[in-house]
Amino acid sequence: MAPALVSLARAASRLATTAASRGAGLAAPLGAAPGLAGRRHLQAGAEPTKTLKPLMIVDFFPDVAASTAKEYGIPESGKDYMDVVNHPDIEAVWVCSPSSLHAEQIIAAAKAGKHIFCEKPLATELSQVDDVLKVVEDCGVKMMLAFQRRFDPNFARVRQAITDGVVGDPFTFRLTSRDPAPPPVEYVLKSGGLHNDMAIHDFDVARFLMGCECTEVTALGACRVDPKIGSEGGDIDTALTMLRFENGAFGTVDNCRQSPQGYDQRVEVFGSKGQVSFGNNYPSGVEIADGASVRSADLPHDFFLKRYEEAYMNETIAFVDSVVNDTPVPASGWDGRAAMVMALAAKKSLNEGRPVKTSEIQA
Amino acid sequence: MAPALVSLARAASRLATTAASRGAGLAAPLGAAPGLAGRRHLQAGAEPTKTLKPLMIVDFFPDVAASTAKEYGIPESGKDYMDVVNHPDIEAVWVCSPSSLHAEQIIAAAKAGKHIFCEKPLATELSQVDDVLKVVEDCGVKMMLAFQRRFDPNFARVRQAITDGVVGDPFTFRLTSRDPAPPPVEYVLKSGGLHNDMAIHDFDVARFLMGCECTEVTALGACRVDPKIGSEGGDIDTALTMLRFENGAFGTVDNCRQSPQGYDQRVEVFGSKGQVSFGNNYPSGVEIADGASVRSADLPHDFFLKRYEEAYMNETIAFVDSVVNDTPVPASGWDGRAAMVMALAAKKSLNEGRPVKTSEIQA
Amino acid sequence: MAPALVSLARAASRLATTAASRGAGLAAPLGAAPGLAGRRHLQAGAEPTKTLKPLMIVDFFPDVAASTAKEYGIPESGKDYMDVVNHPDIEAVWVCSPSSLHAEQIIAAAKAGKHIFCEKPLATELSQVDDVLKVVEDCGVKMMLAFQRRFDPNFARVRQAITDGVVGDPFTFRLTSRDPAPPPVEYVLKSGGLHNDMAIHDFDVARFLMGCECTEVTALGACRVDPKIGSEGGDIDTALTMLRFENGAFGTVDNCRQSPQGYDQRVEVFGSKGQVSFGNNYPSGVEIADGASVRSADLPHDFFLKRYEEAYMNETIAFVDSVVNDTPVPASGWDGRAAMVMALAAKKSLNEGRPVKTSEIQA
Amino acid sequence: MAPALVSLARAASRLATTAASRGAGLAAPLGAAPGLAGRRHLQAGAEPTKTLKPLMIVDFFPDVAASTAKEYGIPESGKDYMDVVNHPDIEAVWVCSPSSLHAEQIIAAAKAGKHIFCEKPLATELSQVDDVLKVVEDCGVKMMLAFQRRFDPNFARVRQAITDGVVGDPFTFRLTSRDPAPPPVEYVLKSGGLHNDMAIHDFDVARFLMGCECTEVTALGACRVDPKIGSEGGDIDTALTMLRFENGAFGTVDNCRQSPQGYDQRVEVFGSKGQVSFGNNYPSGVEIADGASVRSADLPHDFFLKRYEEAYMNETIAFVDSVVNDTPVPASGWDGRAAMVMALAAKKSLNEGRPVKTSEIQA
Repeated sequence: MAPALVSLARAASRLATTAASRGAGLAAPLGAAPGLAGRRHLQAGAEPTKTLKPLMIVDFFPDVAASTAKEYGIPESGKDYMDVVNHPDIEAVWVCSPSSLHAEQIIAAAKAGKHIFCEKPLATELSQVDDVLKVVEDCGVKMMLAFQRRFDPNFARVRQAITDGVVGDPFTFRLTSRDPAPPPVEYVLKSGGLHNDMAIHDFDVARFLMGCECTEVTALGACRVDPKIGSEGGDIDTALTMLRFENGAFGTVDNCRQSPQGYDQRVEVFGSKGQVSFGNNYPSGVEIADGASVRSADLPHDFFLKRYEEAYMNETIAFVDSVVNDTPVPASGWDGRAAMVMALAAKKSLNEGRPVKTSEIQA
Repeated sequence: MAPALVSLARAASRLATTAASRGAGLAAPLGAAPGLAGRRHLQAGAEPTKTLKPLMIVDFFPDVAASTAKEYGIPESGKDYMDVVNHPDIEAVWVCSPSSLHAEQIIAAAKAGKHIFCEKPLATELSQVDDVLKVVEDCGVKMMLAFQRRFDPNFARVRQAITDGVVGDPFTFRLTSRDPAPPPVEYVLKSGGLHNDMAIHDFDVARFLMGCECTEVTALGACRVDPKIGSEGGDIDTALTMLRFENGAFGTVDNCRQSPQGYDQRVEVFGSKGQVSFGNNYPSGVEIADGASVRSADLPHDFFLKRYEEAYMNETIAFVDSVVNDTPVPASGWDGRAAMVMALAAKKSLNEGRPVKTSEIQA
Repeated sequence: MAPALVSLARAASRLATTAASRGAGLAAPLGAAPGLAGRRHLQAGAEPTKTLKPLMIVDFFPDVAASTAKEYGIPESGKDYMDVVNHPDIEAVWVCSPSSLHAEQIIAAAKAGKHIFCEKPLATELSQVDDVLKVVEDCGVKMMLAFQRRFDPNFARVRQAITDGVVGDPFTFRLTSRDPAPPPVEYVLKSGGLHNDMAIHDFDVARFLMGCECTEVTALGACRVDPKIGSEGGDIDTALTMLRFENGAFGTVDNCRQSPQGYDQRVEVFGSKGQVSFGNNYPSGVEIADGASVRSADLPHDFFLKRYEEAYMNETIAFVDSVVNDTPVPASGWDGRAAMVMALAAKKSLNEGRPVKTSEIQA
Repeated sequence: MAPALVSLARAASRLATTAASRGAGLAAPLGAAPGLAGRRHLQAGAEPTKTLKPLMIVDFFPDVAASTAKEYGIPESGKDYMDVVNHPDIEAVWVCSPSSLHAEQIIAAAKAGKHIFCEKPLATELSQVDDVLKVVEDCGVKMMLAFQRRFDPNFARVRQAITDGVVGDPFTFRLTSRDPAPPPVEYVLKSGGLHNDMAIHDFDVARFLMGCECTEVTALGACRVDPKIGSEGGDIDTALTMLRFENGAFGTVDNCRQSPQGYDQRVEVFGSKGQVSFGNNYPSGVEIADGASVRSADLPHDFFLKRYEEAYMNETIAFVDSVVNDTPVPASGWDGRAAMVMALAAKKSLNEGRPVKTSEIQA
């Protein structure tokens, strides 16, 4: 399977203009401004990332690349990721290939001077991650890791509340993160395990919210949902992980491969001054009350594509913005490495039945 | 002030393709599909209304038209709305000019064979509305009125619950609709009054939800927020309107020009089998609990641009869709007329201190 | 049907003592006080109205009176309400007989110098109410009307928020009050109609919350739940009533004889500074989230006995307290008269299809 | 400090009668029953535990015993707990003395043939607990432990949902239990430590909800709230404890000696079919929305006396009921022992930094 890569054109001034007009629109007084309605309709159709000009997409199956290119109006498509790497007009690449190909493709792109947006993980082995980080640093390109939750309004608002001091010193936290339904065993076998594949997002969130490093991990886990995930996949499907952080806070990550109500993503952080939390997002806010029950009209969003739709938009904008304005990426390769270390510590803790220091994990 | 008009290019196949891919993406199993992440990033940047190609924008102030055109990548701009009407490549126009110019511009566009998307109201007098409706019908063009709430996930979900039979026979309803802060008196003077300017959206929602016509209106009103709205504007700023419908249901529309917590948009419909309702939307779902209070981290959305962001997108898509596929528009000029009749009845009821039948209102 | 009367013994010091100990218990620091647990168990079994010593109960069916007396440990029982009126040790009577007997029994009790707690209404005709009020005043006894909602934590908290200034100047309000299921036609025929029987509680709440008098009533109504309520009972079962108050506020009372989700009791008051509101009470706060829905584990309380359990306790304590300490009753006969005037105005408005001033209603 | 003891008189028929009338009252149709209002007022003043006749109270300070006896109408008081033990009319005793005296007093009462209601813990050492359990068993008296949460509507409703099968097989759970403000160090020194004093209630809840035994405990803890609790009290004030149960479920207990929003008591149980949970209880359900925030009008209940008011009533009724009807107590001495073992395992886990099996704990 080859990578799907797209490119970024130079259009810095455009992005800034759009952002300004957007802010102005929201502050406009009471619909009284002449032309406001017209602007609104333009904005409804305005590309939030107009600065981003996709130039090429490649895929192991070139037909898929071609049809996707057609669908999204991308001028070029192909099969070989080196065509992207060698393309003179391409400034940045999106690495969305299978995890096992990430390291090789990132290194090639970095050496060609392209900025890189990469799906997690950077690589499947910690030693490879370190290789990748070194190459990227040496090449002086930007690399952002796709920890999209940092760009979700809820997660970002919790972080803001913490930095605003609402929570005070964080004491404890809990992150709930459950998928709607278990993947097939074939997926599990290639996934690197629940900690690497699923909990790693929560581990990143824990670091993002605490604003410091995790020092110790204690993991409980079991195969409760689908026995084949254990017997054939060698993995767990239900996990409870206790994390201890440098700031003295500790908390839990609570994962399950199955959630009957839908995709379950909730956070609570508690501290010396108060608590901040959020529950699930729903397709609508409608409530039904009848003789059977008082209930939300809908279940929570079914899965990550819809739940994090705004976050995907925001992270794309954030990456483009950091490239265009040459500012630090808000989720770096080092963040990816740290979350991977936590996942490895969790796996070790589960295997050995004891708390594991993150310092025990070596590349 | 001249109109802001944009145009629609032929790209029917594109819209269908995008819609299909979108649906497929949402239904994709558990993130396991190869290339899913790549598609996600493409979608994040994908124009939801790619079918819509803005070709020209005109404004009474041509500098404003020119700079907006530049900002949104629109090839042409100008001052005279007839340039849009006479443009050979333009299929559809968006009429977003001051209300007093709507009738003239709609009629010109219709006679030129353009489809029309128009901000409410169609015209400032009921007799003009009837003229407009006749011309549009005679010309065989489509005309859609910008009642965007019909396209909001909450309003649409309530309507669906009603048609699904969850409510049974509707007995009563209440629509709360309050603006964050009162407009200046200058705005009030040109607005046509609270019933025409503000409550008319709720009147349309009441018809949309009930699925039949309003027969009687009883209005209470007062100037409570800003005395100048009464003394200089000749208007009220706080209103309570009782509506009676053909299906035997009655209910209230509760309006105010001021709402300290922000833009307040809520609905409740109660019937023989149950009740369906929704509350306000918030920038985030975060809750803070400390020694002061347990509260939402944010106030509800500040105003309509943000609150109905998704609805504006959806209504634009819906109009384009009905043009491209030649299907009926989901909010027609007749809907606009009916809401205007309700607003006129409300004004008459307020003035005369008695219930007014909608049949009393004549063009 | 004869009245059920009970009596009040002198035990002023006891009530005060209990109240003090109760307050102290709540303020006790952290369970550390010696004997706290012991006190807690005593309090759990402590009679909240120990000051109240029921001495006699009478009923048209003396067997019922006797068995109830036995059940509740009341020393005497009987058939004739004059036995209560003439009982030398009885200080206060509870008039809980059918409405048609209230006036006669209140007058007898007042003339015998007994304080009176009376279920609403004071009488079935306004002229009788005025007679009752005059006798009670002349006799110098206290009379409290059973508007228990004033003593419910939610209604009382809304009133407090208003007097605290949270709402600012009240602009609009809405009171929803729906019974779980319609009564039989026999009940309707004796009830005095929905406005007198059901909405009157809401009319009292509206006065209680606004803190001033209602000046105008506009009523809509229909028979939607059970056609027999209309055809045989001559009544409506679904009502919407607009009330206008001296303070410039207006609002609605929304009643229905049927509510599929259970007893529906909600309030919202909106004003210049903010809004205060509450929803329904539930047997538990438990939420269930599964593949079917996300819902409250229980429906709201089924009816008034459970919903207002605490309010009944509080109103009894409040009446006893005003007798023992010789303070004004918190819900007087004049409050009962005012609510009855509103009900009569609503009925008149419904019949005549126009707003009716409360000043039009004469005894 | 001497014990506070009260006694139980024979009145089995009374309790049954009251319970029946209560049920009937709640099911009465629509307020139409003659005499219903009268019964309601009687019920408002009806003693829920009329069967319970307190006969004597003793306290190390006899003046306190005497004044409390007077306040609650208890005929006798004294200083020596043996006066209760030897009282011929007393059937049951409430042991509410300091923990260090429980074992001695329970044994004396049991040997005198009295049934026993005891505040937790049964004794301060596990070996003493075993002694107590043996004596109680040998004497054939009933002993109930004051785990009042089992009798709270929320906790009980969660348990019911689990036994109803709503959750399916329990996978994970989390219990949050935070006190409003830390106790003084003097209290901490005598408390037996956070696990024994505070978390023990949650450990009992975990067993109650899971319906089986805890097999392993892993504890994290820190002194975050008040450094003196650590330095002088030798205790922690913030704890996170992972529990593993025989049914394969695992979960957390999250404790803190401080909670800025008030007493924080929440539960979530997640399983193969769904999730059941509840949040905090509030003095009222009123919400305020103004320019500052949208918030609950009140903070959650301040502490256990108010939060568990209904639970204290219910547990007293339940104990009396099991004595009167000779049925098993719903929270036994064995339940107390099991929770104590969990607390000891948690303490050991905290000290040794490793998971501890409950089977490692020996008397």
